[in-house]
Amino acid sequence: MTNNKELKVAVIGGGSSYTPELVEGLINRYDELPITQLWLVDIDAGMEKAQVICDLTKRMINKAGCNIEVYLTTDRKQALDNADFVCSQFRSGRIEARIRDERIALKYRMIGQETNGLGGFSNACRTIPIALEIAREMEQLCPNAWLLNFTNPSGMVTEALTKYSTIKTVGLCNVPVNMERGAAEMLGVERKDITMQIAGLNHLVWARKVLHEGKDKLPELIEVLLEGNDKMTPKNIPPFEWDADLIRSLGILPCAYLRYYYQSRDILDKEFAASESKSNRADLVAKVEAELLEIYKDPTLETKPKLLEERGGAYYSEAACELMSSIYNNKRSIMHVNTRNNGAIQGLPNDCAVEVSAVITSSEIIPLRVEPFEQDTLRLIQLMKEFETLTVHAAIHGDINAAKRALILNPIVDSGSHVDEALKETIKENIEFMLAFSHVIEAL
Amino acid sequence: MTNNKELKVAVIGGGSSYTPELVEGLINRYDELPITQLWLVDIDAGMEKAQVICDLTKRMINKAGCNIEVYLTTDRKQALDNADFVCSQFRSGRIEARIRDERIALKYRMIGQETNGLGGFSNACRTIPIALEIAREMEQLCPNAWLLNFTNPSGMVTEALTKYSTIKTVGLCNVPVNMERGAAEMLGVERKDITMQIAGLNHLVWARKVLHEGKDKLPELIEVLLEGNDKMTPKNIPPFEWDADLIRSLGILPCAYLRYYYQSRDILDKEFAASESKSNRADLVAKVEAELLEIYKDPTLETKPKLLEERGGAYYSEAACELMSSIYNNKRSIMHVNTRNNGAIQGLPNDCAVEVSAVITSSEIIPLRVEPFEQDTLRLIQLMKEFETLTVHAAIHGDINAAKRALILNPIVDSGSHVDEALKETIKENIEFMLAFSHVIEAL
Amino acid sequence: MTNNKELKVAVIGGGSSYTPELVEGLINRYDELPITQLWLVDIDAGMEKAQVICDLTKRMINKAGCNIEVYLTTDRKQALDNADFVCSQFRSGRIEARIRDERIALKYRMIGQETNGLGGFSNACRTIPIALEIAREMEQLCPNAWLLNFTNPSGMVTEALTKYSTIKTVGLCNVPVNMERGAAEMLGVERKDITMQIAGLNHLVWARKVLHEGKDKLPELIEVLLEGNDKMTPKNIPPFEWDADLIRSLGILPCAYLRYYYQSRDILDKEFAASESKSNRADLVAKVEAELLEIYKDPTLETKPKLLEERGGAYYSEAACELMSSIYNNKRSIMHVNTRNNGAIQGLPNDCAVEVSAVITSSEIIPLRVEPFEQDTLRLIQLMKEFETLTVHAAIHGDINAAKRALILNPIVDSGSHVDEALKETIKENIEFMLAFSHVIEAL
Amino acid sequence: MTNNKELKVAVIGGGSSYTPELVEGLINRYDELPITQLWLVDIDAGMEKAQVICDLTKRMINKAGCNIEVYLTTDRKQALDNADFVCSQFRSGRIEARIRDERIALKYRMIGQETNGLGGFSNACRTIPIALEIAREMEQLCPNAWLLNFTNPSGMVTEALTKYSTIKTVGLCNVPVNMERGAAEMLGVERKDITMQIAGLNHLVWARKVLHEGKDKLPELIEVLLEGNDKMTPKNIPPFEWDADLIRSLGILPCAYLRYYYQSRDILDKEFAASESKSNRADLVAKVEAELLEIYKDPTLETKPKLLEERGGAYYSEAACELMSSIYNNKRSIMHVNTRNNGAIQGLPNDCAVEVSAVITSSEIIPLRVEPFEQDTLRLIQLMKEFETLTVHAAIHGDINAAKRALILNPIVDSGSHVDEALKETIKENIEFMLAFSHVIEAL
Repeated sequence: MTNNKELKVAVIGGGSSYTPELVEGLINRYDELPITQLWLVDIDAGMEKAQVICDLTKRMINKAGCNIEVYLTTDRKQALDNADFVCSQFRSGRIEARIRDERIALKYRMIGQETNGLGGFSNACRTIPIALEIAREMEQLCPNAWLLNFTNPSGMVTEALTKYSTIKTVGLCNVPVNMERGAAEMLGVERKDITMQIAGLNHLVWARKVLHEGKDKLPELIEVLLEGNDKMTPKNIPPFEWDADLIRSLGILPCAYLRYYYQSRDILDKEFAASESKSNRADLVAKVEAELLEIYKDPTLETKPKLLEERGGAYYSEAACELMSSIYNNKRSIMHVNTRNNGAIQGLPNDCAVEVSAVITSSEIIPLRVEPFEQDTLRLIQLMKEFETLTVHAAIHGDINAAKRALILNPIVDSGSHVDEALKETIKENIEFMLAFSHVIEAL
Repeated sequence: MTNNKELKVAVIGGGSSYTPELVEGLINRYDELPITQLWLVDIDAGMEKAQVICDLTKRMINKAGCNIEVYLTTDRKQALDNADFVCSQFRSGRIEARIRDERIALKYRMIGQETNGLGGFSNACRTIPIALEIAREMEQLCPNAWLLNFTNPSGMVTEALTKYSTIKTVGLCNVPVNMERGAAEMLGVERKDITMQIAGLNHLVWARKVLHEGKDKLPELIEVLLEGNDKMTPKNIPPFEWDADLIRSLGILPCAYLRYYYQSRDILDKEFAASESKSNRADLVAKVEAELLEIYKDPTLETKPKLLEERGGAYYSEAACELMSSIYNNKRSIMHVNTRNNGAIQGLPNDCAVEVSAVITSSEIIPLRVEPFEQDTLRLIQLMKEFETLTVHAAIHGDINAAKRALILNPIVDSGSHVDEALKETIKENIEFMLAFSHVIEAL
Repeated sequence: MTNNKELKVAVIGGGSSYTPELVEGLINRYDELPITQLWLVDIDAGMEKAQVICDLTKRMINKAGCNIEVYLTTDRKQALDNADFVCSQFRSGRIEARIRDERIALKYRMIGQETNGLGGFSNACRTIPIALEIAREMEQLCPNAWLLNFTNPSGMVTEALTKYSTIKTVGLCNVPVNMERGAAEMLGVERKDITMQIAGLNHLVWARKVLHEGKDKLPELIEVLLEGNDKMTPKNIPPFEWDADLIRSLGILPCAYLRYYYQSRDILDKEFAASESKSNRADLVAKVEAELLEIYKDPTLETKPKLLEERGGAYYSEAACELMSSIYNNKRSIMHVNTRNNGAIQGLPNDCAVEVSAVITSSEIIPLRVEPFEQDTLRLIQLMKEFETLTVHAAIHGDINAAKRALILNPIVDSGSHVDEALKETIKENIEFMLAFSHVIEAL
Repeated sequence: MTNNKELKVAVIGGGSSYTPELVEGLINRYDELPITQLWLVDIDAGMEKAQVICDLTKRMINKAGCNIEVYLTTDRKQALDNADFVCSQFRSGRIEARIRDERIALKYRMIGQETNGLGGFSNACRTIPIALEIAREMEQLCPNAWLLNFTNPSGMVTEALTKYSTIKTVGLCNVPVNMERGAAEMLGVERKDITMQIAGLNHLVWARKVLHEGKDKLPELIEVLLEGNDKMTPKNIPPFEWDADLIRSLGILPCAYLRYYYQSRDILDKEFAASESKSNRADLVAKVEAELLEIYKDPTLETKPKLLEERGGAYYSEAACELMSSIYNNKRSIMHVNTRNNGAIQGLPNDCAVEVSAVITSSEIIPLRVEPFEQDTLRLIQLMKEFETLTVHAAIHGDINAAKRALILNPIVDSGSHVDEALKETIKENIEFMLAFSHVIEAL
């Protein structure tokens, strides 16, 4: 990428209510990231909402005085043609699918989160085929573009793209960036002065180091956290207590999602309770979505509204825009991304996707080297990576045995005949998004 | 070991109701295994029962016309002095401890099996300190003797002995020998004509090959099993259905205990039901024990009674006696034992204990080489091995954090605050057998 | 293999002067190895000599009173048809090729041994294509037969057969058996009472253990050797001094061929001196061959003549016949063979050939587990294995770059432009046996 | 390190004729690297020459108008006290030792280069004890300082420092920087526009990637090199031809020193020829040194003289000063350094030193991730790393067996009795610098 190009950015799932965050980020970095075309792509079913988003986008850009043309289209190929960056933030099956996943999971007394357990599996099977379809089009229309994936489950989607496509792909998640921001706040230092090292898999990461003026402040950060001053957990994860001795014994700091593994039953109990009181996560999200859309429609609104930050995606713009700028300007920022392992985490295959702190250059994503994990943590990571790898395989090939073997392995999915039932139900209800399973649908 | 020695055998836990099986085996092999002294060791609390066993043993030997002196003692050192083989079959805390383990586990809705989950953990913590105490005495009194361990959890006890003692140790279990016998029966061939290869961890093994006249009959055996003709499962494991497609997809044959991992919830549900109807495993065992003892008391009984085979330990004599004979006579029998890995199962540490088919020589135990496991099975084995390693560490050092980390890792133990409660209760109620935890008992 | 079969044995290169040794071994084991047909196969050019061997063979069998039909043929397929064991002991290019190899190597100041350095490379390239041709025929005509390979370089030939054919192959060499016999003699014990563990690659092995009555006598054996009482080195290897401190520091006992690696220049100097005095190895062999043949022709000779033992192949009959008998009778003898690694030597690929002590069963060859080598020894083994793997690849595919990369890696081949010259000359002079290189011969 | 510090730099071996290059670099970066004290440390024997260097340094700094105090001292501790950066560029035994090494090596027909073969071994044994002594002092006097090591053999010295000291150490060499500069020139692009990836061990590295505008230009660079346009080889390495097919087959670009491994005999022949004509490398260096010193004495000289670049150390200043600045300013430059492996090169231990391209931050040195090497190249690297590790061990512990095992392993050292002789001679003649070997000197 030469440094004086006029940039074209395509956003798949452009009608998402997150888009204004992205737009705000692009506006803020307009000086260093000379975008001239911004293409929002969405499907017919989402066009009404997408139009609202597009109109707001135009008002925001206009207000900021940036020279960016904004396009809304259902023609993905037109948007991808000659693009420099493609942001993937679509949701396959829309919010309805997420609500369905949670319902099925809870019916069988399982965790119904969109990136973990049966919900994560289901989401992966719906999403990966579309992600690969996009990558195929990019291989034709913009083979040198970078694909920034935010679509959940981000780790598995990135693994599928990394293994089955030649497109340069980086997966992003806002969990690590929340950890980094929170850590700076908790330590009372400037965020720019810390170098945080994060490693693991998407939604299964640990902070390994928090370097500040040559010292590793991780032990101090752990103590602050244990005193109850958690500023790292995104708002969409319920606040929770860690076992102090356990965390000190681990010596590394787990992300909030690791509660699904360290405190499974407590989480499950909470989810059941929430479900009975109709306050499950997917329903909540649907409600916030509706409210947001109403706000966006206001023709006098020219900036990102505050309410948006209440969703889990806060700082999403930061991750996406900083990543684009760092690639474009060869900035060598340290960011926390999903990328091909190649030895960064010892004990995992070279070709799998991991979530690690990395130096972002215009040529490569360079992970910070990770000290070997202690054996028990490594075993958990290895197990979950195998779950992910089997799931990716099942999603692409419609392999029902791979699906079962994936779910049996997952430690937050109780194995048993109920899983087979839940799996059948999941595939049947999602078959329009999981066409790879068509050949077995009759037999289920 | 020279081949013309008069052999001394010591049996720790000699008052076990299994002893008559062992004695029968020794009698059957009297020609090839010239034992002159058989020492039964037990504790004061078990002496009444042990006397019954000892008397029966003497009647059996007398009837058979063997020239073996039988001794009953509570002085373990006297029994170990200059012994050639030491059979360890004691139960730390006796049957009451097992009943207690099952009760606590079920109270917290967990699997309460004596070798798996919380029950296995508890049993290991009670047993390992005594096993090491015996090994220390052997290092002084009979450093060249072989220790044959049958005490459960056999894998973890063998790992502790292998890592922390110089005594030559072999761990045994009757699961693999049941699989081999059953396989021959199911295939309609002579058992002597098959060479079965088994690999994994204790109570977590798979058949990898069933060689017969140069061909691997494992696929055929799998089909016979799936037709419902299971002759491999010991009588103490409930009969159960496997998912045919899953088993074919795995391509290897899991032992019955793997249902705890492949079908956890179904097993747990069964155990709950049994518990409510007072028919849980430990109570059942206690009842059979009492019946057996009454039979043993009959002064006209001079052979092993049939009822003994109804317990899970059938063919235990075969394993123990064949192992002793194979070592003594350098027979090179192929047996399925727990031994130091050293690369037999790739992906596990060299120094951990594994359960594998091995050639038994007078010098070494030589595992059959195992083709690498498929990745998902390997990940499960690695995880469980780490659970075992952490448990062994916790048991020896009284390390409560290691205990927690072990239990969090175990896929059939739901993590969560209930585990901490159950762990506390387990340690408190067993503290007399878990003295390593004394330093933390106050803080619990 | 069922145990009451009438066995058919085919010997490829049956006209070798070693054959009488093999025949003697078969006669000695006639009771346990019921052979009814013995087929000697040779090429037209060797038929005159082969007829002499065949006649002697018949006289020997007749004298012994065995009921074995002996056939001599140039029709290999007829001999292979329905064979149970195939012994491969041919020499591609006959003794002339070996003389040529030594000449070229010495011309370029390189070691010219038939299994090491350039000579080993050349021999492999001549031999492997024929070995694979035989395996292809076996796959058609006797797919369940065992192939016993004695053809040098035995390690590389076995690797080629193991990787590129489905035939069950075992590679043999008389170096380990000489070490074992010598060790027993040096320790003053019965050979049957020791269990020797040998590990490495063909002509690059070390004794790792010498178990005797439960103790490892290797340190004692090393001291005996260092006192100058070497009974382990075959007669075709010059006697030589080891550096005592070095050997004690290694703690394992190198085979005689390791002098090529530990004392390269001294060996090379000796070979030059021998070459100048016309007493190089190949010429010597040719002379002994001629003498032997004269003796064999004597129609009154009915047993193996003493002179045969002066060649390096002493105890060859023992290895071959014991191996056949052990397979046929499922004897579980411990022998030292070339077989697929599969983790036996840690740090080498699973699918490469290694030379290790193994239990011989009718179903599988089971290597004794090898404690990890110290790092420097491991690195040498890994390097040489890669030399072998590249050589096998070059031999099959006629890949000149693989050939160069193999030779550059070999520590007893000085790299440099002289190697390219020597390689060209080798290929050109051997092209009739190295047809895979035909496509590059013009460009050389 | 905070960003507004006044920096103190200590240069061990400050009297080196290279120092003016370093001084020039510091002057050029004065704006970004606010040095206030520059301490030149040397030994008594070198003080006369050091004074000349110091005077020139002062004239250069004065001319440039920088506010840097320059000190010359033999009191190393005073110089280290509170230092921020310590540059180590001493030569243990001075140039005489290097001449001696080359003489002994050639006497025994071995390569006598100061970083390879016997010469490298000898140099390491002389240098490592002093390097560790310096590190010990730093641990007391400036524990947070960075140690930049240029002292040869840079890889082994860095390994010793990394393993046996807590001081943050980076090893440098001018080979990679010459490759990078040369590559840019050969490709006709700006050096700042390429990102070169280099990996291996010191003096045993390969270029793995040359990224330019998102493409890897390595294949193109290889073709340019093969056309004879080598701009990458330092002036102290003789120009040489590569085998075009071989290099293309490798697909990676070896550094010039790899000729010692790929073309050993040709190099050795050249060195012999040079030696006979008295033009060996060490003598040549001594001559240039003398000339340089005369020039430096000129009181009107106020800048670095051109002649300095004729030595192998060109661009040394660049490496040293850019490294200091990059650490101080957290610049995240990509440089090629010797650092702890930790998985960067797969197949080597985590704790060994490797030479790799790395991102330089104020907190850590982050190696670019390296795609796995092809197996033959990996085996060479592993072997040489083991040579280095054994040498470091021998140097520190005076272990003569480790020394022998190191030399036997080294592929450019012929093994044999001559090596033992050469080793003895080396230790005896260098004993004042190799005190660790004192305990064995009598026995040699």
